[in-house]
Amino acid sequence: MHTFTIHVPTFVEVIEFIGTFAFAISGIRLASAKRFDWFGAYVVGVATAIGGGTIRDLMLNLTPFWMTNSIYLICSALALVGVILFGKFLIRQQNTFFLFDAIGLALFTVVGVEKTLALDFPLWVAIIMGTITGAAGGVIRDVFINEVPLIFRKEIYAVACVIGGLVYGLCSWLGMHLTLVEILSGASVLLARILAVKYHWALPVLKGEDNVTDKS
Amino acid sequence: MHTFTIHVPTFVEVIEFIGTFAFAISGIRLASAKRFDWFGAYVVGVATAIGGGTIRDLMLNLTPFWMTNSIYLICSALALVGVILFGKFLIRQQNTFFLFDAIGLALFTVVGVEKTLALDFPLWVAIIMGTITGAAGGVIRDVFINEVPLIFRKEIYAVACVIGGLVYGLCSWLGMHLTLVEILSGASVLLARILAVKYHWALPVLKGEDNVTDKS
Amino acid sequence: MHTFTIHVPTFVEVIEFIGTFAFAISGIRLASAKRFDWFGAYVVGVATAIGGGTIRDLMLNLTPFWMTNSIYLICSALALVGVILFGKFLIRQQNTFFLFDAIGLALFTVVGVEKTLALDFPLWVAIIMGTITGAAGGVIRDVFINEVPLIFRKEIYAVACVIGGLVYGLCSWLGMHLTLVEILSGASVLLARILAVKYHWALPVLKGEDNVTDKS
Repeated sequence: MHTFTIHVPTFVEVIEFIGTFAFAISGIRLASAKRFDWFGAYVVGVATAIGGGTIRDLMLNLTPFWMTNSIYLICSALALVGVILFGKFLIRQQNTFFLFDAIGLALFTVVGVEKTLALDFPLWVAIIMGTITGAAGGVIRDVFINEVPLIFRKEIYAVACVIGGLVYGLCSWLGMHLTLVEILSGASVLLARILAVKYHWALPVLKGEDNVTDKS
Repeated sequence: MHTFTIHVPTFVEVIEFIGTFAFAISGIRLASAKRFDWFGAYVVGVATAIGGGTIRDLMLNLTPFWMTNSIYLICSALALVGVILFGKFLIRQQNTFFLFDAIGLALFTVVGVEKTLALDFPLWVAIIMGTITGAAGGVIRDVFINEVPLIFRKEIYAVACVIGGLVYGLCSWLGMHLTLVEILSGASVLLARILAVKYHWALPVLKGEDNVTDKS
Repeated sequence: MHTFTIHVPTFVEVIEFIGTFAFAISGIRLASAKRFDWFGAYVVGVATAIGGGTIRDLMLNLTPFWMTNSIYLICSALALVGVILFGKFLIRQQNTFFLFDAIGLALFTVVGVEKTLALDFPLWVAIIMGTITGAAGGVIRDVFINEVPLIFRKEIYAVACVIGGLVYGLCSWLGMHLTLVEILSGASVLLARILAVKYHWALPVLKGEDNVTDKS
C-alpha cells in the first residue's frame, strides 16, 4: 500500500531554515552592493550560509552536511529569489534579519559543538568548531566580495559563539539535561549578540604601528 | 626481459593537458599584471589549474588528484616557462586560449560529475562538484591576486558547467551510452561558453542598495 | 602512588613553540596595522601559525595537528597578550622575529616533509607539503587582511622551503642518519632565508602586459 506522507519539520529544522535563510540574505545583499550577477550573488549567499559548517566538517573528516540534504541550497535559492522579487524592501528589514541571523548563529554554534563532542574531541576543540560553524561563513563571504572580514573589526560576533560554547560545557559539567544544555547555550549566544548590538559592545582595537614594515 | 615502453597519451589525457595548460596560463597572465615574481606566478597558475579539483576531492574525501600524478604540476611549469620565454606573444593569443580554456572547462566539468556519481552521490551534488571542478580554480586565482572573482560578475561561465551537468544527467536518464553522454555533456559546456562570449550573454546583475549598511 | 611529573619539553618542541610564536606575531602585527580588534588579531595570528599545517593535514587526510594538542592555540594567545602588553616594543624587535620566523619556517618545512613521506607519498609531494606547511599560513594571513600575498612578490621565502625539501631528499638518498638529514634540511632553509634577506635575493618579476584583458 502506498501512503502519502507529509514531512512535518521539527522545531530545530524550522530554526535551521530561518538561520540559513538569514545567512544567505546577508551574503546576497553584500554581493548586490558589489553589482554581482545572480549566479555570483547566489554563490556568496550559499558560501555565507554553509561555509562555516563545511570547514568544520572537513576538519572533522565528515562529508560536508549540505551534500546529504538539499534543503540548504534550496533555502539559499529562495533567499535569492526573495531579493530579486522584493529587493530593497527585503533588504531593509534590518531588525528582522538581525534577529534571524542571531537565531541562526545560536543554532549553528550548538550544532557545531555537539557534532564535535560526538566525535570525542575535547571541549576546547568543540568550542572552536562551534565558532567556526557560526562565524566562518561570514569570513568567506567577505573574502569573496574582497573586503576585510567584518567580524575581525566589528562588535562582538564570534565571541558570542565562544560564550555559547563555554555555557554548553559548563551546563554539561553541571549534569543538566541535554535539551536544557542546548537551550541555555543557544540563548547565551542570542543574548550576547542582542546586548552587544544594543550597547555597542566591542573588543578593544589592537594598537600597533600604523606604518608596519612588511614581513615577507 | 626488459622492454622499453612509451606511454601513448589517450584522447582524454591530451584534452586534460590542454585544459590544465590554459587554466595555468590564465592564472600566470593575471599574476604578471600584478608584478608577481616567478614563484608567485607559478603558484597562482597551479591554483587556477588544480584548485577546483582539489576542493572537490577534499569534499569527496579523496586524495587530491594532483598528488598521485605529477603531470599537472609539470604542465603548469611549462605554462610558466612559456610565458617567461614568449611573454607578450603567448599572452596575446586570446582566441586560442579562450578555446583551450573552454575545452578544459568542459572536460573538468565532466570529470567532476563522474567522480561524484561514482561515489553514489545524487545528481545535484555531482552538478555542484562539476561546477566547482571547472570554476573554483578561477575564484582562488582572483582571491590570490586580490580582485573580486570575475565569474561572479562577468558573462556566463560557471553556469555553463551547470548546463553541462544537467545535460549529463538528462542523457544518462535517457539511457545513452556513456561515451555519448560524456561527449554531449562536454559539448554543451563548450557551446554555452562560445555562445555566451560571442553574443555577450550574461546573467542579470542583482540590484540592491548602493549603500548597504554593514552586517557584522 | 601518585607521582607529580613535569613535562620537560624536547628540543623540537622548544623550536616548534618559538616558530609558532613568531608566525603568530607576524599575523598579529599586520592585523594591528589594519585596526583589527583583539579577536580578529588573534584569528589572524592563529591562521598564520597553523594555517599551513592545517591545509597539509586536510590534503593528507589527517586530523589537523592543532586539534590534538592545545599548545599551538595557547602559544598564539601568548603572542597576542605579548603584543597587547608590550605593543610597539615587541613589534620593533624585527631582527629577533626575523630569526624566530626563519627557525620556525625551517622546522615546519622538515615536519611537513616527514609527515608526507611517512604516508608513502613520493618526494615531490613531500616537498610541496613542506612548502605549504611553511608558507601557506602567510598567504591566508594576507587574504584575511585583504592584501596581495607578500610571498608572491617579495624576496625568497617559499623557495627556501623547496630548497630544504630538496636537501632532505638528497641527504636521505645518500643514506645519512635521519637526525643529520633533518638538521641539514632545516639548516638549508635557515641559510637560504638569511642570505636572501641579507643580499636581497629575489626571483625575477614576471613581465607581462600591464593592461591585461580580463579573462572570465
